[in-house]
Amino acid sequence: MRMLDLIAKKRDGGELTEEEINFMIEGYTNGDIPDYQMSAMAMALYFQDMTTEERVALTMAMVASGDEIDLSAISGIKVDKHSTGGVGDTTTLILAPLVASVGVPVAKMSGRGLGHTGGTIDKLESISGFEVELDGDTFNRLVNENKVAVVGQSGNLTPADKKLYALRDVTATVNSIPLIASSIMSKKIASGADAIVLDVKTGSGAFMKDLEDAKALAKAMVGIGNGANRHTIAVISDMNQPLGHAIGNALEVKEAIATLKGKGPEDLTELCLTLGSHMVHLANKANSIEEAREKLESAIESGHALETFKTFIQSQGGDPSVVDDPSQLPTARVKLTVDAQQEGYVSDIVADEIGMAASMLGAGRLTKDSEIDLSVGVILKKKVGDFVKTGEELVEIHANTDTVEDVKEKIRAAYSFTKQPVEKNPLIYDVIEN
Amino acid sequence: MRMLDLIAKKRDGGELTEEEINFMIEGYTNGDIPDYQMSAMAMALYFQDMTTEERVALTMAMVASGDEIDLSAISGIKVDKHSTGGVGDTTTLILAPLVASVGVPVAKMSGRGLGHTGGTIDKLESISGFEVELDGDTFNRLVNENKVAVVGQSGNLTPADKKLYALRDVTATVNSIPLIASSIMSKKIASGADAIVLDVKTGSGAFMKDLEDAKALAKAMVGIGNGANRHTIAVISDMNQPLGHAIGNALEVKEAIATLKGKGPEDLTELCLTLGSHMVHLANKANSIEEAREKLESAIESGHALETFKTFIQSQGGDPSVVDDPSQLPTARVKLTVDAQQEGYVSDIVADEIGMAASMLGAGRLTKDSEIDLSVGVILKKKVGDFVKTGEELVEIHANTDTVEDVKEKIRAAYSFTKQPVEKNPLIYDVIEN
Repeated sequence: MRMLDLIAKKRDGGELTEEEINFMIEGYTNGDIPDYQMSAMAMALYFQDMTTEERVALTMAMVASGDEIDLSAISGIKVDKHSTGGVGDTTTLILAPLVASVGVPVAKMSGRGLGHTGGTIDKLESISGFEVELDGDTFNRLVNENKVAVVGQSGNLTPADKKLYALRDVTATVNSIPLIASSIMSKKIASGADAIVLDVKTGSGAFMKDLEDAKALAKAMVGIGNGANRHTIAVISDMNQPLGHAIGNALEVKEAIATLKGKGPEDLTELCLTLGSHMVHLANKANSIEEAREKLESAIESGHALETFKTFIQSQGGDPSVVDDPSQLPTARVKLTVDAQQEGYVSDIVADEIGMAASMLGAGRLTKDSEIDLSVGVILKKKVGDFVKTGEELVEIHANTDTVEDVKEKIRAAYSFTKQPVEKNPLIYDVIEN
Repeated sequence: MRMLDLIAKKRDGGELTEEEINFMIEGYTNGDIPDYQMSAMAMALYFQDMTTEERVALTMAMVASGDEIDLSAISGIKVDKHSTGGVGDTTTLILAPLVASVGVPVAKMSGRGLGHTGGTIDKLESISGFEVELDGDTFNRLVNENKVAVVGQSGNLTPADKKLYALRDVTATVNSIPLIASSIMSKKIASGADAIVLDVKTGSGAFMKDLEDAKALAKAMVGIGNGANRHTIAVISDMNQPLGHAIGNALEVKEAIATLKGKGPEDLTELCLTLGSHMVHLANKANSIEEAREKLESAIESGHALETFKTFIQSQGGDPSVVDDPSQLPTARVKLTVDAQQEGYVSDIVADEIGMAASMLGAGRLTKDSEIDLSVGVILKKKVGDFVKTGEELVEIHANTDTVEDVKEKIRAAYSFTKQPVEKNPLIYDVIEN
């Protein structure tokens, strides 16, 4: 078998066999196939796409390229959740204890990541004493005991995907549905998930700006998951403005605590209940989505979800009193106000610009080795559809510097206003099940 | 400027500027742009094509990447000819003295090449004493004196093309019209041609099997030539069977001599007169194609073309008596006959298979360092349309071994027969002028 022939086959619209895909991914991972052939293949894939069978084979070949996490010591159906990313997305912090509280085992492996704020692991570390490095046995035991544990990524997962992603990044082949879908799904499957709920964002603040593109990516990932015998569904949700109110690490932990108390922002709460219902249903802990949702609502109302969060924090060495007194979380030195300079209805908040503002305050990581400031960030006081008077507070800035004029400017530029009342986008556009 | 952005632009169907193309080709030649980015670009070009302006810019950037031959010391319009290759194509050997004999300066730089037989340089070396290594001044002087000289390739012509071609060869991006066209045209322009006549082959024995593909390549090359101020035309000619009768080095020299005497195969003679007429016309040595053709026919008839060939041989140290006594050329030890095993009209002769047979006898070069046997080859005694009786001679094999059963088998397999008379393909399909 020769890579040259496989490139020509795909270039001409042919379908690669599982054997051919394994040859390609093994060869690329061990260095037998050079970058210049793989990048030509990636560009051919960009134009010629892949069938579901090819996508499944590519995903499983990338899974097989490295370590696979064995969660078989944990009883029950392990349901993982993945979001394609956005601004102010605190769902993992809420969903982990929430679905665990109704009996779904949550064995979450999470990264630090690059972006406007840190990853779930960074956010959890804003809780005093919280330990994210656990050995495998401890991790499995904690999930069996408490139904939830979160651990930092370890091991050599999907090295083929890492190598291929780095190549795509410099050859203008990132933006290919089969390659994006197999990259995400290979990481989820290598992490040991039995079933997967995907939150695919669409809108100005999402990777997929266009709803149709988001649906295509969702269908691709659901096709791979189900083709690989991991029951998978995808929710298409709105990212035309930041989700919730808080963007920042400790600020998002506070928002998560509020949401588990039933006092969170409406959109964040609704998205968590939607994603959570599907997780509970896939884990066979409810007979229908509706029943699953009722269980989650009860868990919030009864305080059981919040108790699960406390147990989870305590089990990983953190101080659970933070839940009752969030003021213990890292706090920025100053709060500053961005006020409205005109009257009107908020018609748009460019999520990326708000994220950039948080990043400028120090909430995010620009390179792998950057330090992040867990205390800083922004709180949106007005969201799309809200009416604002001139001089009213739009956004509260939490900063450790006094000179934030550039941040204020960025935030003001992100907001648009109209004279007429605004029709809001739906929060959930679609649910893709196959 | 970043190569990543140029790849993305082309991937999305954009048009690269001359500045961007220069950046890309300079960077790739000097190693600043890595193979893996160039191969992704090549695949994007495969799918998105290039405008004529882009093709011209790419060609001229490749010309500028290395040495350019300066033929300004030679008076007159230097017209070069290029053939896209086929089996039994002896046109250069005939055309060089033929058009020189009517006053067109032929300053031909030629290669050895890989293939079923050697290149023009190898064929000329079958003439005792013939010297293909000439310094620039001698070369220019000979063309001014005799209107014709042929020299082996020297200098560092189009290194960008060499590097890019080697990459395309291993990334399934050879078969791209803009890349093929700019590769060929960059070499012709770097070799100093003022005007160019292209012979684009089509048919089973050609690189372009399909007439429409051949026309597209011809149009691409004519567009580049004219865009680069080199008057260029292309003749589309048939390669559904080998051209002429001889395939082999010395055998083709003999056939060239016969053609210059007016006794060559009909198809080879006709193609030479067609290509030659266009060369004479582009060189302003005739007011019309018809007048040019008459001049060439007179030159053959009067013996002036043959005299020019003798002068040319002598001027480069060769023994011109070979023209009157071709038996002085290298001769194979044995002649063997392939006879027809059935009666009928020859309906097809697969040119590649015949070429392969010659190659198996030792006529061709498989790697750059292979030795070739100038004496061996095959003579087709029957061509498409001819009627053959069982047992009649189809092909004469000239070999230096006695066991040629595999060669005979290959030749027999290349021939097809029908009961009904066969309508022959036209020799010339089209002439592309813009």
